[in-house]
Amino acid sequence: MRKKNYPILVGLLLALSTTAPAAEKAQAFTRADLAAAATLRERALTDATAYALVESLTTEVGPRPAGSPGDQAAVAWAQREMQRLGFANVGTVDAFVPHWVRGEAEFSVLAPFPQSMPTLALGGSVGTGSEGVEADGVMVKDLDALAALPPGAVKDKIVFFSNRMERTRDGSGYGKAVAVRAGGPSAAAALGAAAIVIRSIGTSDSRFPHTGATRYTNAAPRIPALAISNPDADALVRQFESGKPVRLKLRSSSRDLPPVRSASVVGEVPGTDRAGEIVILGAHLDSWDPGVGAIDDGAGVAIMMGVAKLIRELDVKPKRTVRVVLFANEEFGTSGSLAYLAANEAEAPRHVLGFEADFGAGPVWRLASRVNPAQLPVVEQIYHALAPFKLVRGDNEAHGGADLEGLSKLGMPIIEPGLDGTKYFDVHHTANDTLAQVDPQALRQSVAAFAVSVWLGAQYSGTWERVTTEKAPRR
Amino acid sequence: MRKKNYPILVGLLLALSTTAPAAEKAQAFTRADLAAAATLRERALTDATAYALVESLTTEVGPRPAGSPGDQAAVAWAQREMQRLGFANVGTVDAFVPHWVRGEAEFSVLAPFPQSMPTLALGGSVGTGSEGVEADGVMVKDLDALAALPPGAVKDKIVFFSNRMERTRDGSGYGKAVAVRAGGPSAAAALGAAAIVIRSIGTSDSRFPHTGATRYTNAAPRIPALAISNPDADALVRQFESGKPVRLKLRSSSRDLPPVRSASVVGEVPGTDRAGEIVILGAHLDSWDPGVGAIDDGAGVAIMMGVAKLIRELDVKPKRTVRVVLFANEEFGTSGSLAYLAANEAEAPRHVLGFEADFGAGPVWRLASRVNPAQLPVVEQIYHALAPFKLVRGDNEAHGGADLEGLSKLGMPIIEPGLDGTKYFDVHHTANDTLAQVDPQALRQSVAAFAVSVWLGAQYSGTWERVTTEKAPRR
Repeated sequence: MRKKNYPILVGLLLALSTTAPAAEKAQAFTRADLAAAATLRERALTDATAYALVESLTTEVGPRPAGSPGDQAAVAWAQREMQRLGFANVGTVDAFVPHWVRGEAEFSVLAPFPQSMPTLALGGSVGTGSEGVEADGVMVKDLDALAALPPGAVKDKIVFFSNRMERTRDGSGYGKAVAVRAGGPSAAAALGAAAIVIRSIGTSDSRFPHTGATRYTNAAPRIPALAISNPDADALVRQFESGKPVRLKLRSSSRDLPPVRSASVVGEVPGTDRAGEIVILGAHLDSWDPGVGAIDDGAGVAIMMGVAKLIRELDVKPKRTVRVVLFANEEFGTSGSLAYLAANEAEAPRHVLGFEADFGAGPVWRLASRVNPAQLPVVEQIYHALAPFKLVRGDNEAHGGADLEGLSKLGMPIIEPGLDGTKYFDVHHTANDTLAQVDPQALRQSVAAFAVSVWLGAQYSGTWERVTTEKAPRR
Repeated sequence: MRKKNYPILVGLLLALSTTAPAAEKAQAFTRADLAAAATLRERALTDATAYALVESLTTEVGPRPAGSPGDQAAVAWAQREMQRLGFANVGTVDAFVPHWVRGEAEFSVLAPFPQSMPTLALGGSVGTGSEGVEADGVMVKDLDALAALPPGAVKDKIVFFSNRMERTRDGSGYGKAVAVRAGGPSAAAALGAAAIVIRSIGTSDSRFPHTGATRYTNAAPRIPALAISNPDADALVRQFESGKPVRLKLRSSSRDLPPVRSASVVGEVPGTDRAGEIVILGAHLDSWDPGVGAIDDGAGVAIMMGVAKLIRELDVKPKRTVRVVLFANEEFGTSGSLAYLAANEAEAPRHVLGFEADFGAGPVWRLASRVNPAQLPVVEQIYHALAPFKLVRGDNEAHGGADLEGLSKLGMPIIEPGLDGTKYFDVHHTANDTLAQVDPQALRQSVAAFAVSVWLGAQYSGTWERVTTEKAPRR
C-alpha cells in the first residue's frame, strides 16, 4: 500500500508534529470544532439513520440500473429522503443515461462434459439473437495471453478468460484484473473471435456471476460478452484441462434502447462565513440490476446522507457548505457526474474539498488523501481526531472515486476515509448485493469516520489549496 | 444433542471400560485388525481418491436429478469408477424414478414496492400456466400459524411462510423447519390458497433460493409452491411490515413427465470367512438440479468409494463383505433404496451393519450409533480407535439416513460417524452446491473416520445383533 515517497512524508509529518508549536497546530481547528467532531463521532456510533436509509432504498426501490424504472424511483426516493432529513436546496441535475436492457442469458458447455452454468451478460454487451453462438472454446489467462496467441488461434472461436482476481483490503486486486472486462470483447473481436466469456472479476467462491460495464472500441465488431462465477470458471478450466476439445454455446437477449433522462440528486447543509465554498460528498444512486445495490452503492448513499444529517443536527453550523450529491449512472460511464460538472462548470473552483463513498459498507480502516502538500498537516490533525478508530495512515495519492474524478482533475483536494474492501468483491455487481451484506455496526463506524473528516474539512481555518498533478500523481 | 438416557449409558460404558479385563475387551478385534485400522486412518489422511471422485462427478456429470440425462450419466460414471477402483460384483439395481422438470420460475412483489426476487420451484410443484398466479399475499410464520388463522383468511391468496431455519451442527434445525416445504402446499390449498412461497429451508444470507421435494396430499388441490432466499424473505417481511397491502405474482413452468428407469449402483470388497454378511455403505447418486451436487451427495459418494478403495488395498481382506450402494433418487421419494430393499428382500437379514454418508463433506465430529445394546462396547472400542480425531461420543439413537431407513426398520444396526453440518444448510439444495464447497482436508478426515469404523465393523469377532425399536427409539 505504501508508495515510495511515504517514508519521506512520514518523516516530514513527524518532524512537524514534534517541532511545531501547539498554537500553530491548533490554528487549523478551534476547540469548538474539535469538540463538535467528538460529538459527531459519538452520535454517529449510535445513530440508526444510515442503516435505515440503505434498508429503505433496497426494500422500496431495489435495483436501479441506469434508465430503468428503479432509476427513476431512486431519484424520487432521494429527494423525498433529503427533504425529510431537513437538507436545504434539495434539487436535481439532469443527466442522460444509457438504457441497456439485460434480457436473459444462458451459457452451456456442450463438450466434453455437457453442463449449463449461471451467467450474466456484461453491461453493454450486444445480444446473440435467439439462435445464440456456438463455437469451439479457447482458454487464455488474460489480455496479454490473448495477444501472445498465434495468428488465427481464436478466429470464430469463443474465448474464455480464466484469470482470477486477487483479494485485497484496498481493492487493488480489482484494478489489476478488470481490464479483461472492459477490453476483452474488442481485443478478442479484433482477432476474429465470435464471443467471449470471462471469469467474474470477484473473489467469492459462491456461484454468483458478476456484471459490470464493458467498452467496445470502434476498431472491431461488437461481440457478445458474458461472465461466469468463480466455481464455474474452475469447472470450465477442468474441462479445458481434460485435453479434449471444448465446445461452448451462449445466448443473450441483451439490447440497447435509446438513452433516457435521469438525474443526480443534490442536497445541502448550508455553510456560514465560507458558505460559498463547497465540501462535496459524493456517492451514486444507480446500481447494477442483479442485486439490490446495498453495498454498491446504497451504503455510500446512506453514509453520505447520514453524515450530512448529523452535521445538520449539531448546535453549530458548518463554515463551508456541505453538499451531498447522489450521482446518476456511475456504473455505465459516469454520465451523471459528467453532467454535474458541465452544469457547474463555473462553480467548479468553489468545490474546495471532496469525499466519495463508493466501496461498500465499511468499516473505515485507513485515512488517505490527495491534497496540496501545504494541507498535509491538516489531514494529519484530522487523522488524530480519528484516533479512536485506530486507522492506518495512508498516503497522499488517494484516488477518491469515479464520480469525483472530474473535479479531482481540476485540482480539487480529496480526503479519503478508506472503506475496508476485503469482502467487497465477494458481492460487488452480483445478485448477492443485498441488505444482508451490510453490517450495521461497520456502517455506523463508517458514518462516524466520515462525519469527523467532513466536519473538520468544512471547518478548516485556512484555505484548501488546489492540487497539481505533478505534486500528487494518481495511483 | 444428548438424550435423556445418555448419562446412564456413559456410566455403563465407563464401568465397562474400567472393570472389564483387557483380554475381554480385545476379543472384539484382533491386534491385526486394530493395526489395519491405524493403517487405514493414516493412508486416508493423505489419499486423494475421494476428492478426485467428487471433482470428477461434479465436473463430468454435474447435476443429476432423478430422471434427467445427468441421472443416467451418473449411473454410467459410478459403474466405470467402481470398476477402475477394482471393486468386485459391480452392478446395478433398477429403480423407477419420478421425472419432474423444473422449467423456469419467476416471483415478483407487485405492491407496495415492486421487486423481482430469484426463486426456485419446490421439487414436484405443479406449474402455473404461462399467465402465472397473481394475488394478495398473506404472511404466516409456519404451519401452526397458518392453522390458527380465521376461516377464509387465505382464500385465493398467496401464502408466504416466513419462518427461518436455525443453524446447528447436527442438522436438527432442518428437521424443525422443513415441515412447511413438504406440507405447506396442501395445508394452504386445503384453506383455499392459490399458491405458496416459502422462505428457503437454509441458513445462508447469500441470495440462493433452495429447492427440495414437496408432497401433495390427495385432500386438497395441487397449488404451485416456490422458495425464495433468506435475504429476499427478509425483504418480503419488510414489505409486509410496511402495513400496506402486499400483491404478489408468481409463474412456473414446472411439469411432471412419466417416471423413467434409473438404477442404484453396487460394488463390493468381498469378505472372507463371513463373506455372507454385508456391511452396507450407502450414499446417493442423484442430486438436485440447481447445483452440481458436490456436498449433496457427491461428497458422500466419494467418501464411501474412497473407504472401500482403501480397504481393498489393505494387505488383509475384510471378514465381512463391504458393499457400497450408490442409491438412485434419494431426493424425490427414495425410490432407489426402496427398490434395492425389494430386490434384496430375502437378503435383508444378511445386511448386518450399515453406514450412510449423506450430510456433506465433513469433517466427522461425532460417533453415534443405533446398535443392539449388547454391541455398545464394540462401538466404544471403535470410538477409541478414532481417538486421534477427538470426536464427541454420541448416543445410541442415530438415524443413519434416508436410504438406510428401510434396512434400519428391519433391525439392521447403524454406526454413524457424524459429518459436521454447521455450514451444510448454507449450500444444501441450492445452485451453490459446487466443488468449491468441499474442503479437501475435511473430506480426507471423513474418509479416515469412516474407513476405521467400517473396517472394524467388518472385522468384529462377534455377531452384530439386530436392533429392536423398543430398545433404540428413533429420534
